Amino acid sequence: MKVYKKAILPLGFKANAVACGIKKSGKLDLALFYSKAPAKTACLFTSNKILAAPIKVNKRYLKENNSFNAVIVNSGNANCFTGKPGIEDALLTAGELSRALGIRKEGILLASTGIIGRRLPVYKIKKAIPDLAQGLSEKGIDKAKLAIMTTDTFVKEITVQFNVGDKTVTVCGIAKGAGMIAPNMACPEQSRGATMLTFIATDAVITQAALNRALRQAVDNSFNCITIDGCMSTNDSVMLLANSLAGNDLISATKRFNLFARALNTVCLELAKAIVSDAEGATKFIEVRVRRAKSFSEAKSAALAVANSNLFKTAMFAASPNVYGRIAAAVGASGAAIREDKLKISYTPLAKKEVGIDVSLGAGKAAAVIYTSDLTYEYIKINAEYN
Amino acid sequence: MKVYKKAILPLGFKANAVACGIKKSGKLDLALFYSKAPAKTACLFTSNKILAAPIKVNKRYLKENNSFNAVIVNSGNANCFTGKPGIEDALLTAGELSRALGIRKEGILLASTGIIGRRLPVYKIKKAIPDLAQGLSEKGIDKAKLAIMTTDTFVKEITVQFNVGDKTVTVCGIAKGAGMIAPNMACPEQSRGATMLTFIATDAVITQAALNRALRQAVDNSFNCITIDGCMSTNDSVMLLANSLAGNDLISATKRFNLFARALNTVCLELAKAIVSDAEGATKFIEVRVRRAKSFSEAKSAALAVANSNLFKTAMFAASPNVYGRIAAAVGASGAAIREDKLKISYTPLAKKEVGIDVSLGAGKAAAVIYTSDLTYEYIKINAEYN
Repeated sequence: MKVYKKAILPLGFKANAVACGIKKSGKLDLALFYSKAPAKTACLFTSNKILAAPIKVNKRYLKENNSFNAVIVNSGNANCFTGKPGIEDALLTAGELSRALGIRKEGILLASTGIIGRRLPVYKIKKAIPDLAQGLSEKGIDKAKLAIMTTDTFVKEITVQFNVGDKTVTVCGIAKGAGMIAPNMACPEQSRGATMLTFIATDAVITQAALNRALRQAVDNSFNCITIDGCMSTNDSVMLLANSLAGNDLISATKRFNLFARALNTVCLELAKAIVSDAEGATKFIEVRVRRAKSFSEAKSAALAVANSNLFKTAMFAASPNVYGRIAAAVGASGAAIREDKLKISYTPLAKKEVGIDVSLGAGKAAAVIYTSDLTYEYIKINAEYN
Repeated sequence: MKVYKKAILPLGFKANAVACGIKKSGKLDLALFYSKAPAKTACLFTSNKILAAPIKVNKRYLKENNSFNAVIVNSGNANCFTGKPGIEDALLTAGELSRALGIRKEGILLASTGIIGRRLPVYKIKKAIPDLAQGLSEKGIDKAKLAIMTTDTFVKEITVQFNVGDKTVTVCGIAKGAGMIAPNMACPEQSRGATMLTFIATDAVITQAALNRALRQAVDNSFNCITIDGCMSTNDSVMLLANSLAGNDLISATKRFNLFARALNTVCLELAKAIVSDAEGATKFIEVRVRRAKSFSEAKSAALAVANSNLFKTAMFAASPNVYGRIAAAVGASGAAIREDKLKISYTPLAKKEVGIDVSLGAGKAAAVIYTSDLTYEYIKINAEYN
């Protein structure tokens, strides 16, 4: 398995981006990903009960089929809490793109990120689509990865390649994050936290069942293990498209699954960690490990309670000696079973700007890890001034 | 019913405070409340699974009896996460005070607030106790209410009087708060948030059952409805002592209950609101009302989700126009049932520095209210530098 810290599109994929005018700054704000060959698709979306319009439209299309050719993404406006007009704007975008690409509109996925509650300036998108489609290229990914950013300060990208026999399979992912980050992609446990968007393209030949299962596992161990501010977005989306052009022997749930799963896990975990590293205003990357919990669910609750505690996060910002007490109070409030006489808390600087928190509850054998950031003046500044 | 924004001790109660040296600043840090007549007592403590040593000792004494004469409180050290030595320190304090006052140690309640995880300098307390006990007076309450403060910037105090026939009953409460505030006094719903301590003295003649029930109701509608930072303390305590000296006709669960309940509700709600008004670094007092929820529990979850959302709280600090979307995202993440087409959110300036948020979920008939504050640079400063 080879890992590249750069987005390299798999066989058959192209991308592009333009500045259509949604962002007042004039920066790139409309991205397109495209595969001429229809791609098997697996998606996971936020479990927030308020869903952005593009997600509602995606869910409708995904009910009908799992074969997609394109993903169109705008940044600067979330098209959420916009009612029926928001749905119409999303459908209009898909319709316009379907004409420009000559594909069915039900083969198009949509994503939006930015301000919630404002009508999408869909006329700007409509006007930009012909140029956007016209300019698709393999190198277009370098523009697309910039166009999905909002308050992100750096690009999140990774490519993993592995061999199946003499064929090379490529898995390439890009993501955006920054604030309102506590993804919970349709999971039972509750969590809350700028929108996280991740697009993953692969040329693997793989069954739909294997694709679904690999994505579920990879997301549970990556995006569902991060929290920046405990605020779950209405727009979180992970989309995985597999266009089969690598020509490898079929990957299924029983054959060659681990090869693909390992590559996808690496892509998702690296992107998830990059999102935490670029957390709004953060000065530290923090790994909270909870061990000896009664169950995985309790371990995760306890780790999330620490990771989402403002008192813990400000103490991390200050490297305050008061942090042990704050961690104890947070795990105590989480509801997880604790044997106080066996409760152990340690704090380890892992590297410059990286901290490891290890909490042993003394109540069982389960463990969980959550990645998070500190809470700083800059977070307040970014979010008080964001508009 | 008469309401005084000042602590006036009921008949038979005395108080005092000294600076015993726990606070490095040399400010008052050891308070004593005393009634020579034994008082029927009701207490509610934090539902955090990590309990401060004084709470463990109180629970032990409360199992044996409901008759107390004194409450001793230190600020500057929480005596929490201190293991068996912490319990011994608490017992030593009770033992020393019992000798000084000539009462049983099982008639003494204890409270501590301050840093978690450091051994209580009990020798300082021991040395100060004789003077503390010696100096008890009715006016001592004016020192005691200062001695319980940590990061509080003003005193929280209130007195309510009502008549039962020709007898006047007095209910007087003082409290401290500031940060780590999200009390959840032994309630099923989960919540999390500096320690909240409240001491209420009354001269009412009342049954134990009525006292318990009145306190439970009053706390559920006051302290359990506030959150500053979503962090539940290990030391939250509400103590209510009734020494029967007013000589009124007996108040029971069926007779004259509402007279007492109304007075106690007023005391608790005013103190709870004062704690929110004095939240660490806060510039705004925010009332989050959720209506048309499927159940009270869902209404409360949704209101807490808004009140504990850092994105909402920073938007409130900035009076950002982006706040509607953040509120929608927060209630959507709360798990409460929502009819998106009926979801209504409004924002009303209630007074200078006071804001009302009204959210109608369109899913049912239940309602709940939560009081909270904004999240500011000053909160980060106070908590990053607290030590």
